[in-house]
Order: sequence, then C-alpha cells, then structure tokens
Amino acid sequence: VALDLMGGDQAPEAVIDGALLALDELPAVSVTLVGPEQVARRLLADRGRSEACVIAPATQVIGMGEDPARAVRAKRDATVRVAAQLVRDGGADAMVSVGSTGATMAAALFTLGRLPGVTRPALAIDLPTPAGPVVLLDAGATVEAGPDLLAQYAVAGSAYARIRYGLPHPRVGLLSVGSERSKGDPLRKLAYDVLTGLAEAGLLVFIGNVEGHDAAGGPADVIVTDGFTGNVLLKGMEGAAAMVTTLLTGTILDPTPGPVTAGTVLPLLAEVSDRVGSAAMGGALLGVHGVVVIGHGSSSPRAVTGAIAQAVQLHRQDVLPAVARGLAALSGRSSLHAVTP
Amino acid sequence: VALDLMGGDQAPEAVIDGALLALDELPAVSVTLVGPEQVARRLLADRGRSEACVIAPATQVIGMGEDPARAVRAKRDATVRVAAQLVRDGGADAMVSVGSTGATMAAALFTLGRLPGVTRPALAIDLPTPAGPVVLLDAGATVEAGPDLLAQYAVAGSAYARIRYGLPHPRVGLLSVGSERSKGDPLRKLAYDVLTGLAEAGLLVFIGNVEGHDAAGGPADVIVTDGFTGNVLLKGMEGAAAMVTTLLTGTILDPTPGPVTAGTVLPLLAEVSDRVGSAAMGGALLGVHGVVVIGHGSSSPRAVTGAIAQAVQLHRQDVLPAVARGLAALSGRSSLHAVTP
Repeated sequence: VALDLMGGDQAPEAVIDGALLALDELPAVSVTLVGPEQVARRLLADRGRSEACVIAPATQVIGMGEDPARAVRAKRDATVRVAAQLVRDGGADAMVSVGSTGATMAAALFTLGRLPGVTRPALAIDLPTPAGPVVLLDAGATVEAGPDLLAQYAVAGSAYARIRYGLPHPRVGLLSVGSERSKGDPLRKLAYDVLTGLAEAGLLVFIGNVEGHDAAGGPADVIVTDGFTGNVLLKGMEGAAAMVTTLLTGTILDPTPGPVTAGTVLPLLAEVSDRVGSAAMGGALLGVHGVVVIGHGSSSPRAVTGAIAQAVQLHRQDVLPAVARGLAALSGRSSLHAVTP
Repeated sequence: VALDLMGGDQAPEAVIDGALLALDELPAVSVTLVGPEQVARRLLADRGRSEACVIAPATQVIGMGEDPARAVRAKRDATVRVAAQLVRDGGADAMVSVGSTGATMAAALFTLGRLPGVTRPALAIDLPTPAGPVVLLDAGATVEAGPDLLAQYAVAGSAYARIRYGLPHPRVGLLSVGSERSKGDPLRKLAYDVLTGLAEAGLLVFIGNVEGHDAAGGPADVIVTDGFTGNVLLKGMEGAAAMVTTLLTGTILDPTPGPVTAGTVLPLLAEVSDRVGSAAMGGALLGVHGVVVIGHGSSSPRAVTGAIAQAVQLHRQDVLPAVARGLAALSGRSSLHAVTP
C-alpha cells in the first residue's frame, strides 16, 4: 500500500503511527511511505522502526486551499501523484491518503485514468449502522451530478456492495426527501426513472427513494446521491454524533447522584462517537483504474490504520474488476439507449 | 393557537395529549382544536377535559401521499385550511400542524398569502446545539432554490434569529462542502456572491461557507441552504443521533461488569436522543403572512406541546413583523439592483 505521508490535519505523525499499527496488526501487508525522504527516515528512527517501511521520495505537498486539478498538474513531485504512479506501475496494489479529497482524486484521475464508461468518479463511504453496512456514494468527489452520473454511481455502488459485503442483490436507494416517486427535485425525478429502467434491465435492484435517516440504517444497502448532498449529509451525521456525545458527557459530568460516573461511561461514548464519526468517513474512490482510499482529514492513527485495512481488503476482494464490469455493462447499454434525458 | 387535530403519524391521540399538556404548562394560552367535531369531543371527554379547548369543525384530512397544492384546493374543509382561515380572520394568533409539511405550507400560502418580497417560503428549524441555537433554513418547504431565494432565506433567517434569540447581529453561513469561497456547486458560488453583496449593504452578517457538521454547532447562528439539502441534512442528523443511541444502548446492555447499568444510563440516552432528533424537527414557516409552526410527523405529545410553545413564543416575540421588515428591505433593494444573476 502506497501511503501519502503528508496528507491530513495531523500529518505526518498520525500517518506514520497509523502505518506502524497497520504493519503490526494486518497480516502480510507492506506499506510504502510517500513523502520527503528525510522526514520519513526521522519519523521511523524516532520510533525505533527504521526498517519497517519502504520510502518513496516525494518532495511536494498539495494543501487544502489549492485548486486540486491545477496543483496536481503543476506539482510533478506531489505525494499523491507519486503514490498514484506507484499503483499505475505496479509498485503498489493500492494507495491511501487522508489529505485533500480533491487532490487525491485529481491525482488518481490524472495518473490512473477512468474506468471505461465513467464520466466522473465517486467517493463511496461504508457506514457501519446497527442494521448492517450502508454504502453511500458520492460522498463528495464530484459536486454536481446529472441522472446519467447517478446511474453510474448506482451500478458502481451495487458492484462494490456485492463483492465487499457478499450481498447477492444489493438494494439501491435514491436519496430524496420522501419515499414517493413524486418527492424530490427535478434531478431525483429523472434519476428515479433512469434507475427504474436499469432495474428492469436487470443491472441492479432499485427500491426507490430513501431519506437522510436511512443512511443510519434502513431499507437500502446502497444510497446514491450527488456529491454535494452526500458530503453535507455525512458531515451532518458526524456533527450530530459528536453533539449527542457532548450532550451526554455534559449530563453525566453533572453532579448527579448515583452510580453513573464519567470514568465508566465516557470511554464508551468516545468509542461510539469514533465509530459513527471519522471512522465512517474513509472512502473508496470508485471509477478510477486502481484501488484508491481517501480518509478523513482529521484521521487519528487508528483511522489511518482503518483506511489502510480497507485498501488491502478492496485489493484482495477484487472489488475493482467487479465495479469495472458493472460500469462496462452500463456503458454498453448507454450507447444503445441514451440514458441522458 | 389553532391546532390541526388530524395531522401526524400518531394523530389524533398524540395531538390532543400534547394540547392538554400545553394548557397545563404554558401560561395564558388557549388552544382551538381543528378537526371533526365528534372526534374532538370524544377525545376531550375520554380525558375528563370536555371544556379544555374550543373546537373548530373541519371534516377533511390531507394525507401524506396526496399532492399538497391540489388537495388544499380541492378540500375546502381540510383541517389545515380551516386552521389557516382562523389565523387570517383573527380567530387565532398562530397555527400548528404536525402533519404533512407540504399540505400545511400549501394551505398557509393559499389562505394567508406571502409576505411582500417572498418568492417561496422556507421552513426554519431551531437546532439546540451545545454551542447555542442554530437556525437552519430551508428544511424542506421548497425543494429547489436559486441564489435569489437563498438570499431571501438569509434575510428572513437573520431577522428570525435576531428577535427569537436576542442576537443583535446573527452570523449567517452558507451551507457548502468546504469553507473556501471556491467550494461548492454553481448555486453556492452564485449565492456566495449575492450574500457578500447583502452583507456589504448592511442587510446581514455573512461569515461565508459552513459545512454539514456546523449544523450541530459552529461559527454560524443561521445556516442557509436549499430545501432538498436541508431536509436530507436534518434527517441524517436525526438518524445519526438515533444510531449513537442504539449503539450505546447495545454496549450498555452487554453484560459488562461495573456500575454502568441500563437503568441508569438509558433514560439519559432517551432524553438526549429526543432533544437531537424529533425535538429538533419542529419548524417555523417563514415568508407567509401569519405564524405557522410545522412539527415532525412522528411527534409525541411532548413534541406537540413544544410546537405549540414555539408558536406562542413566535407570536409574543413579534417575530413575523421583523421578518417582514427584513424581506421588504431586500425586496426594495432587489428592484433597484437585480439580485438574480
């Protein structure tokens, strides 16, 4: 796994600690640190693990404020570009970054290219709900979508959920503001009809509209939406989970009589909040020619390890070929019957 | 307060119980039940409170599956229409429904009319975050918006927060997918410029883009977005809060040693979940000529009481005139400098 050493709010410390945790915990995994050679050497030496990782030198970093596409073109030695080159050239099976989503996506598109039939890639997030995993896409790779792009997401997400979670017929839901077909803006109404057509053609199972709360567990295994709405939804869920934790912590820290003390409940809260919050925000970039995992910018070492583990699984499960086959089938169909309205 | 007896998943029982609670708890409030006369009489008699409420007879109910505008026109004796007529004719100071948002909005528009300068109304939700209240609009009254409509929401939301929470200069944020001006879809980029113009003209304080998690507490007092995104965000937050509660409950019910027991923590969880979930979903319909509060369809009696209390406060605080003045100022400005791009 090629790991972007310099991406994320707590880089490079959280990234290196996450990498070492992954090496300790995951069987038969090796990690290539992509970043400034001296920084990487020092971080490894400081931890007494000088030989733990291979280092792929890359001197440039793309910041959160930069225009991703322009920065990726301009910075030939950017960490995300070098990581993507490793995947392209067979030096790594997958790449992981917890830095700028836009920069990672731009580097993946630029270096690895799109799968056939893909207009724009999508970020697919696995949400660990009490009712089982829900795959939400797009979580923010592409801010705008038309009905044909939502159809690509539906096919890619369906293939992803089928392989990743062993679901023979993942149920795909279209995110809207009510379950009836008539609910939603014009994009959802068009997408509803396109997805109905794909279901009739046997390309996926479409269960109709779902709503925001279904991302926390509901009738759908896969929830499809545009990247703007998906990003707002995920961040809102993260905020709400943190809010519940804060409110509960405040309640528990109140000098209430009884056996509930901060020491006993707070660790539970932290664990649950972590599961719903940042842990839920690592995502697979679907639609590019390679395994790319983008983690949350605020990733802790544990979250970096989680992103690495996800990349390893996606590679070993052969998720990419399944997604490519689904998209190729859709693409073949599209050339006969235009999906775009 | 004119109360729609037949709206909501648990109507009419939860509605009548909420009304009686409101009468017991709120000083100097009277409630007019709007619904079938015999149903209302029986419910009151069953509870030994035959004289507690005035009854305004209305025989028709608009269901969740009906087209709201068509149903409101066709059903002259619908509860939401009769309630809106009471407000229009001075028989009530405010109306409350926990039924279909679309039907209540259509009835309010049809009977009460729009305030000057309003293209479409918005549903404003008060989110009780640990950092203080955040007003989110539109939470789902209107599925599509252009930059000029978002500007109306910003002005109306700003006036609302100023009066309701005594904030002299409410900070308005535009919901997007990153804090930089360049983040977001074309609608947000246009709206960013329009809101910057309104701030320069002194009509409001604009702090730029905010993100989904800021709805759970952040730099903005007022968060502005289209009704589609707002609805998805709120329902997602509700789902996440419920998910945290479920996960924690599962953890706590595990046979863990120690003093944390279900009996001590579960009531706290239920209370917090209620505060973040359905309690957060009662909203004021801004932009119509009258005080209209629309509660969550799954409202409990306690949530119905909360919606009634909100309607009473909005009336007593004179929020409506403040919103009308703000919108009139925006409208006067628009006629000189076109806000629509």
